[in-house]
This record gives sequence, structure tokens and C-alpha cells, in this order.
Amino acid sequence: MAVGTSASRTDTTARLAELRKLMALNNVDVYIVPSEDAHQSEYIAPVDARREFISGFTGSAGCAVVTSSKASLSTDGRYFLQAEQELDSNWELLKQGLPDVPTWQEWALREAEGGKNVGVDASLISAAQAKVLLEKLKSRKGGELIGMDSNLVDMVWSADQPLKPLDPLIVLGMEFAGKSFEEKLVDIRKEIEKQKGSGLVVSMLDEIAWLFNLRGNDIPFNPVFFSYAFVSPTEAILYVDENKITDEVRKHLGELVIIKPYNAIFEDLKTFNMSTATEESKILVTSSASWALTKSLSENKFTTIKAPIEAAKAVKNETEVTGMKNAHIRDGVAQIQYFAWLEKALSKGDFYDEVSAADQLEEFRKAKEHFVGLSFPTISSAGSNGAIIHYQPEKNTCARVEKDKIYLCDSGAQFFDGTTDSTRTLHYGTPTPEEIKSYTLVLKGHIAVATAVFPKGSSGFILDILARQYLWREGLDYRHGTGHGVGSFLNVHEGPIGIGTRMQYNEIALDVGMFISNEPGYYEDGQYGIRIENVVLVVEKKTPNNFGDKKYYGFDTVTMVPMCKRLTDPLLLDDDEKKWLNEYHSTVYANTKDYLKDDDYTLEWLKRECGPI
Amino acid sequence: MAVGTSASRTDTTARLAELRKLMALNNVDVYIVPSEDAHQSEYIAPVDARREFISGFTGSAGCAVVTSSKASLSTDGRYFLQAEQELDSNWELLKQGLPDVPTWQEWALREAEGGKNVGVDASLISAAQAKVLLEKLKSRKGGELIGMDSNLVDMVWSADQPLKPLDPLIVLGMEFAGKSFEEKLVDIRKEIEKQKGSGLVVSMLDEIAWLFNLRGNDIPFNPVFFSYAFVSPTEAILYVDENKITDEVRKHLGELVIIKPYNAIFEDLKTFNMSTATEESKILVTSSASWALTKSLSENKFTTIKAPIEAAKAVKNETEVTGMKNAHIRDGVAQIQYFAWLEKALSKGDFYDEVSAADQLEEFRKAKEHFVGLSFPTISSAGSNGAIIHYQPEKNTCARVEKDKIYLCDSGAQFFDGTTDSTRTLHYGTPTPEEIKSYTLVLKGHIAVATAVFPKGSSGFILDILARQYLWREGLDYRHGTGHGVGSFLNVHEGPIGIGTRMQYNEIALDVGMFISNEPGYYEDGQYGIRIENVVLVVEKKTPNNFGDKKYYGFDTVTMVPMCKRLTDPLLLDDDEKKWLNEYHSTVYANTKDYLKDDDYTLEWLKRECGPI
Repeated sequence: MAVGTSASRTDTTARLAELRKLMALNNVDVYIVPSEDAHQSEYIAPVDARREFISGFTGSAGCAVVTSSKASLSTDGRYFLQAEQELDSNWELLKQGLPDVPTWQEWALREAEGGKNVGVDASLISAAQAKVLLEKLKSRKGGELIGMDSNLVDMVWSADQPLKPLDPLIVLGMEFAGKSFEEKLVDIRKEIEKQKGSGLVVSMLDEIAWLFNLRGNDIPFNPVFFSYAFVSPTEAILYVDENKITDEVRKHLGELVIIKPYNAIFEDLKTFNMSTATEESKILVTSSASWALTKSLSENKFTTIKAPIEAAKAVKNETEVTGMKNAHIRDGVAQIQYFAWLEKALSKGDFYDEVSAADQLEEFRKAKEHFVGLSFPTISSAGSNGAIIHYQPEKNTCARVEKDKIYLCDSGAQFFDGTTDSTRTLHYGTPTPEEIKSYTLVLKGHIAVATAVFPKGSSGFILDILARQYLWREGLDYRHGTGHGVGSFLNVHEGPIGIGTRMQYNEIALDVGMFISNEPGYYEDGQYGIRIENVVLVVEKKTPNNFGDKKYYGFDTVTMVPMCKRLTDPLLLDDDEKKWLNEYHSTVYANTKDYLKDDDYTLEWLKRECGPI
Repeated sequence: MAVGTSASRTDTTARLAELRKLMALNNVDVYIVPSEDAHQSEYIAPVDARREFISGFTGSAGCAVVTSSKASLSTDGRYFLQAEQELDSNWELLKQGLPDVPTWQEWALREAEGGKNVGVDASLISAAQAKVLLEKLKSRKGGELIGMDSNLVDMVWSADQPLKPLDPLIVLGMEFAGKSFEEKLVDIRKEIEKQKGSGLVVSMLDEIAWLFNLRGNDIPFNPVFFSYAFVSPTEAILYVDENKITDEVRKHLGELVIIKPYNAIFEDLKTFNMSTATEESKILVTSSASWALTKSLSENKFTTIKAPIEAAKAVKNETEVTGMKNAHIRDGVAQIQYFAWLEKALSKGDFYDEVSAADQLEEFRKAKEHFVGLSFPTISSAGSNGAIIHYQPEKNTCARVEKDKIYLCDSGAQFFDGTTDSTRTLHYGTPTPEEIKSYTLVLKGHIAVATAVFPKGSSGFILDILARQYLWREGLDYRHGTGHGVGSFLNVHEGPIGIGTRMQYNEIALDVGMFISNEPGYYEDGQYGIRIENVVLVVEKKTPNNFGDKKYYGFDTVTMVPMCKRLTDPLLLDDDEKKWLNEYHSTVYANTKDYLKDDDYTLEWLKRECGPI
């Protein structure tokens, strides 16, 4: 799942006119407005929603490019429908992945032909992306790529731009983190030594939060805080606004970590570049480092490595694994309460729209131990809204949840002991044969991933076809990945692993202790959406043989919410699939029933939903 | 399948001593002996079997590296057992793909540390590989990479080295080729223009044979001939020994193609490099071009592109598709006759060893229309020999084919209208429950590939897991790819497509008209081998829907030989799998029965084997 919002159109004419004036003043012909913040965050704080402000498109992924006369917005399949609904006529939509549709880079390069200058806020584009653009601009006889210190959209936005968040940080205790930041620093320093680096620049917010066992509140739904970090064999520096540092945080970090102002890293890097870093012992940066960061370093003094903290963070320790499992059980109980409650409400004919229903789900979650907040805005979608993959209902205008329409609910929460994310697609009335068939095909793909066994060293890339194979046989498919890594009380989308067709997913093996979502879907535009999402844990599987002494891995499902039997056609399931479904439901029942001792109605509902197929 | 030979050990001590003397004289510390010829052929003529001569290892893939005191031979999982049996104690075996085993490049680089020189025959290594080695040598402080014009192993081999083949070429008529070489030249010139090249160097032998509709007899089992070609917008030059050119060939090529001596390309490229090629309009080479070829060109005058002829050749035209289908039917009939005959022979207690049995199969094939020869040495293997993946039996020493042992037969032929390749694993007695289970797991994987449906644009890389999934569940696997492209009266292994874990297979989509093998297996060392191989054709599938207007593709199986029901456990097959098997057997019967009208015994056998499960 991901972030998105309403489907109303913003008139961007005046904003674009102002931006174009500023572009002309700055000698910029083509201006790039990425959706990311200075940390290449997927989800951003309101202050950073520049691409949304200038284009009107509210989806979580996409890039805007503006010229003196044109404007393009590129986004992926999850958002085609939403973008069509939100963009006004100033904008051309570039549907990524469809044949003959240019990427935003290709579009920008074409517009820059004939020596035109391309401008971008250097902090909002990764150094790697800037390098590619620079080279292509050169080879295609475009003008300069100007990496700007100021942001032109901010100037247009001006007084209306939201403020930078300033909430204090919190310390994540060992009972949740499982490993002290001192131990993590030891490991990271070993990695820096192995890579022969003089130090590591950390710019991803979830990596910094994980490394120091700190959490923040700067980005909605993501417990991270604006910061940079620099770790060398002798020093650890956290660059963060001092206003966010409480006495507890200061005590936690002790003498080992130096705290400096957020923006001080740029000057520090310049100094370090001149003093300590050498061609033999370079500064290590990761592929997410912004161009603004690497511009502070000379080309021969830094090198880009695979993010060691991202890789370490993806493998959860024992405490985190236990926490994630427990969080998913409590979260499952909340969803069970919600879906049981919703059935009763609908059968009574009560009026609930997508938002008020989701509010009730949040109430059930709030009552659970260790609850912090939602991990993303709940995608509570009735009928055709379910086909907008990252739909987010708006109060007052959203649709009514109805007994005889498919209801898709993708939701999750942040608990101190783990982050949850799951999707259930339900029908409380009589679904059509087509809806049942589609749901069952998605379920078969879901089960194929859940039960997959693969040799150690396999990536999530190779598993993707398992989820899609039954849909493909019918000439059906879905335009999103099958799985994403999940953080532990961190971002609900976490790198580097994933199940899907992105080549990067083939570069890292699934390892024991990693959590990943399993979420195939099917979307019938204008009618309904289906998605079945569980979080699964990578575990070693006991196979009868162990060919090649490889070890064989598979998944344990940790999400604990019943599937929708009313939407399942048992005739389309084979014996193994039925067995999995029945065993899953037994496990869900066993793990959640004690939480419902005092709630006879919900317990009865659960018992019914978890009965054998 | 692929080429291999006997499992006897050669004493390489004297050869290595001589080679080391020559290395010292030439100031070479580390000498690389690739298994390829000057055209990066996978299968080679006896004159080019340098790696086999120096190491004693006869497998089709592998690389030898020799230093003053050490010698290593690296090969892949198909050949581990065979290499262990063939290498003498002078050699260290580098088992590629196992953890912590260096590649031959890594091994050579380690040996070159401290400024030692690495030598290689520049014609036997691709320019791309040489470049990587050059750069790594530099970064790891090794000595020079010396690209030699002469070959040190040839000097050791001396008078015993086989002669260069000189058989005349033949013209492939339009009834088999389906497209004239004139039309192919028009297409290639369009591609050269598109890539803004001044000309294209063609060095792969099957590409040249395909382009000019010529076939030769220079490499056993591969109907190709030693040659280079150069195509520019105005010229087409075929570099080939004039002794191979008959009047018919000369007439066929007419005025459009200039014939020059085989080695004249090197001087021509130097001239062209100085006269016609420019930095704007470079000479195009492909990744298989040898270092010797690119050394004739300046760095800024050539560019490496994806082989356009390889890509065009992979998609068979209508005539070729029909020819391939017909060739596979006739080839299937030969195999049906053979397997029926073998059953009778074994039940009578007749003595047949692996070679004499295979000879009988060849007799059946020879009698078929358009037969030219085998497409690779038949892998006729009884019992434990089947576990040597590319086993090749030797007269006199090979094993007896027995009624109560698994018999694996991987074979194929060259016909004027197509190339065949298939494997059947049979048991004429009572197989063990373990053998039945293994066979059925392999069969399930085979069926999963055969029935796969995937959107246009999908690669063979993503299909590999379908073939392995059932084995993996049991902790089993096989150490070879699942499929390779197949030529049309050309090489039985043909690029660029494949089903397997090699990343290159993910770079090209499967397209309608391509032929590929589907050959999962399982090998129990010292006991038995199982492989089930059919050739399949990529076709468009009529799906009930066409989501995203993508078109959905799948396979039609063209190999026409029954599976082994005696080795199949119907309880392990689901309904869809049984349905596929029964339909396949009906098709085999319908397509082959008319060829067996006068052979009641074989027809009865076929009827029995093709009956429903």
C-alpha cells in the first residue's frame, strides 16, 4: 500500500505562470520537480509536497517537469486513474510502463535539445540520477544541468508552504530495538573498514532512526526525523535540529554521538574532503545520497556503495521478529473486530462511508497495546474506488460502504514493537461470479507466494510470477509489485527487498529474518478492486532433502486476519491450496481468540470465518 | 543437451611442461586457454580443442588457466563429476557457482598480483572479456594483458593438431530458409542505419550461415563454416576459404556478395578504420567479437551493439516454423521406433550397451526425409551415468542398457528443414518409488513451463522458477538451465533467449516464432539421472481477457515423443496436469501414427504409451 489522497482537480495555471517567471529569471528552460525530499523519502512531510503543489497530483510517486510552454507528470500504474482525475489541462500525463511512453528523464532531455538548460534543486535529486542526466544531456547536445541551492517551487508556494516539523525525538528501548546503537555502530564500522572507507554518509531517514534507536514524528505515518549522519572509525555525528533533542535522547546517545545542526553536514563534508578523505580511503555514500551532498565532495574522494545500514536493517533480530509477530496479532484482532462490526452495521442498514468506517477501524487499533499511529492512510474503498490502487477517501465526498459491493481495506499501524500492513477484500452480500473468480485467482497467487520454497540466495524478483501466473492464464494482471519490505516500527515500505519486476529486487537475496508483504491484486476499472495482502517472514524450511547443501527458505505468514470465504470459489482451489487456507484460518483463530474472550459476537464471527472451506 | 566425451584421465604433465617453457620465452606468467574458437563458438572443431588438449577435460564449457607452477580448470555444474574424473593431479578444479569458488578471471587475477603478465590468444577471447580483464589487472596491480597473435597450445600440440576442415558449403534453398539472403541484407542494412553505423562486423558462425542462407560442415553437429562477414550500406563481404566455395554457392551469392580470404578481414578492418569509419558513424561489432577483431580498430571508431542478426535469427519465419514442426514429427517417429524397439530388445534379454543402442537410434533417424546428421552426440546413459549431465558413452567401455535401470536419452538431429533436441527418461522394468517421485516432480515442472501464459515482453528468466518449484519444495534442484534457444538447421544451442538464472536471459523478451527447449531434470549422483526435454514454440495464446492490451503468450510443444507413464505417479499430478499429459499424448499419436502404418508392433507400442493416464 501507499499514500494518496482525493481525486479533485487543482487549477495550476497561476502557479505554473509564476514558476515559469522564476525559471526565466534563473536561466532555466526545463525545471524538474521530484516528489522526494532531501532524503529520497518515498513519503514526505507536507513542507516537501512540492510536486503535489505544482501539479495538483497527490499520489506518492511521480515526477513533474515544466518548460516554458509544457508540463508533464509521470507516474506508474498504481496512479494512472488518480492522475487522470487530478491533473488539469496544463499537464500531460506520462504513464510509465506503457509502450512508447517516455520516462520523465527522456521527456526532459527531449525538451532540452538544442542547448536548453535543465534545472533542479540539487538536494532533491540523487547524485546517481544527476550523473545520468548530466551525461545524457551532454551526449544529446542539451544545455547545462543546473543543481540549484534554492527551490523555485518553494518561492511560488511562499507563505502558504507548511512549516518544517519540530516534534521531539523518542528513544526506542532495548525491549523493542533488540540491539543497542553502540553494537550497531561497531558493526557499521566493521563494514566501513571492509570497504576501506574513511567514513560513511547516511542520508536515508529510516537508516538513521534505526542506527541510533531513535524515532521521530516529522513525516506522517513514518516514525522518522529530518537528519543526516556521518560515521567514521572514530566519530559518529548526528545532524539534527537541536530543538528535537530531549534530555532523554541526549542521555541515550551519551558521549559516543556528537549532535550538530541539520545543515552542518555540507560544510563538514567539505572540510573532511580536504582533510581526511583520500583517494585510497574515500568517503562512502549510498545511491540515495543527494547531489547536494556529493557536490560537497570531490569526485575522487568519495565512492558509492550498497547501503550497508539498509541491508542490516532489513534482517530483523530476534526481539524485532517477536515484536513484529505480536504487533501483527494485535493488529489482526483490531481488523477482526472491525470486519465483524462492519458486517453487523451493514446488515442493520446503518450508514457508513469509507472515511467513517475507517475511523472505526482506527478506534479498534488505538485500543491495542503499544499503538503509536497508523502506518499509512487507510485505503478504505467501496466498489469502483477499489480499482484506484492507492485510493484515499475524503470526508464528505467519499462513497458509502455497501453490503452488496466489494469493500477493499488496506491498512496498517505503527506499534512500538512493529509495523503492520495488510489488505482484505470483503463482500457482505452476494458477489457476482466474476468477482468470485477474480478474487479466487488473486488468492491462488497469494497462496503460491505464501507456500513457495526456494534455495538460499534466491531473490524476490524470481517469485513474482508465482503471484501472477493464474491471472495471466486468463489474460489478467495488476499494475503494481507483489511485495515490499516492511520496517520494524519504521517505514511500511522498506528497502532493499521486494517481490516484483524491478531489477533491483534481483540484486538482493531474501534472508531469514526479513519481513515482506505478499499482495497480489486485480482491478477492474470502474467496478471493483481486489487485493489480498499479508506480511510474511522469511524462514528456513525443513525440506526432506537439502540438494547442494544450499538450505531452502520460505515464508511464515504473520498477518492474522481471515480471508473472505464468500468471495472464494473452492472449485478453483486445488487440495494443497484448500489445505493452506484451512491451516491459515486455524492459526488466525488460535492466535487471536484470547483477545476476544469478552466479545461473544466477534468471537462467533471469527469462528465462522475461520471454519474450514 | 551439449557435447561431452569419455571419462578417462589424460596425463598432462609433459604438455604443461612444454607450455610453461613457451610461456617463459614469451614473458607470460599466467596463460589463459579458453574453450572457444575465434568465433566464440560453444561447440568447436577438433582443431580448436586446445583447452581439452592441455587439460584433458573434454566437456563443452570451461576455461583453463596455467601459471609456472599451477593450473586451474573452471567449469559449471553440468560437468563437475566429469571434470573430477578427467583432470589429473596437475589441475585444480574450480566448480563455478559453488560458494567461495573463484571464477577463472578471479583466479587468474590473483595469480597475476605483483605485476605478473597474463597472456591469451587475442582471437580466442571476446573484446568485452579482454576489456574487463585489462581494467581489473590495472586496478589490482597486475602486469600486462598480452593479446597474442600466435597460440602457445598450438605450438605444444604441433603435428598432432587436427587439420582445419575444408568441406564445401551448401546453399539452403528457399523451401527451407523461407527468406532470401537479399531480403535479410535489406533488413540488416536498415538496422545498421538505425544504429548510425558505417558497417557491421559479423563473427558468429551461425549468424553468417543464417544471413547468407549457406551451411557448412566445419564443426561437428553444427552446420556452420569458418568465416567472417562485413556488411555496410553498400557492400557485403564474406571472408571464407575459397576452397569451400562451389559454383553453386558463387552463383547463389551473385554480384551482391564479395568473397575474400578468411583472414583478410583483419587488414580490411584496419583500412576501413582509417578510411570510412568516423566517430559519428562507427563500425558496429557485437559482444562476441574477438579482441583480435577490435584490436584492428581504434577505440573511438567502433561501438558494441546487441547482435542484430542473432535477434532476427531467433524469430523463425513461417517456412522455418513449419519446417521445425515437421522435423520434430519425423524425429519423434524415429525416437518412437527406437524406444519401442529397445523395449522389445531388452525384454528378449538382448545385449545392447549405451553406444550400440544409440547407433540404432541413429539408424532410425537416418531413414527420415531431409536428415543431415545428428545435432549433438547422443547422450545415451544407463543408470548412474544419467547423473553425469552431459555424459557421452564410449564404445567398449560404456555401460549396458538394462531393463531395471533408468535410461536417459538426450538426442537430436539436423534436418534440412529444422534442428531437433529432446530428452526422454525411461524405465522398462519396475522403478523404485523414489525414482517415480523424482520423475513426477520433474514432469510437473516441465508441464508448468509448457502451460505457462505470460504477457508479451516477458523473458525466459522469469519462467525458470516454474520448472523448479516442485523440486524446491522437496529441497531438490538441478544444476543446469531450463531452456535454450534452438536454431533452424543451425546450432542446437542458439542465443539470445533461454530459460534459466543467467541475467542475460532477462534482457530479451520471448517473441512469437521463437523455439526454446523446456528441460528440467533431477540427478541423483551415482544412481540415476532424469531429464524431460521438449522443444516448444512461442505462440500467442487466446486468453479470455487481454488486460492492458498486452497480448499474452505461451508455448506450443513441437517435440512428438510420449513421456514415460511407468515413471509417473498420477497421485502427484493435479487435474490440469493430467489433462495436459493426456492431450499431449493424443497429439503425439495423431501426428506420428501415419508414419507407422506398416509397423504394427511400434504402432501398438505408441498406442499404449499414448493412452490416457
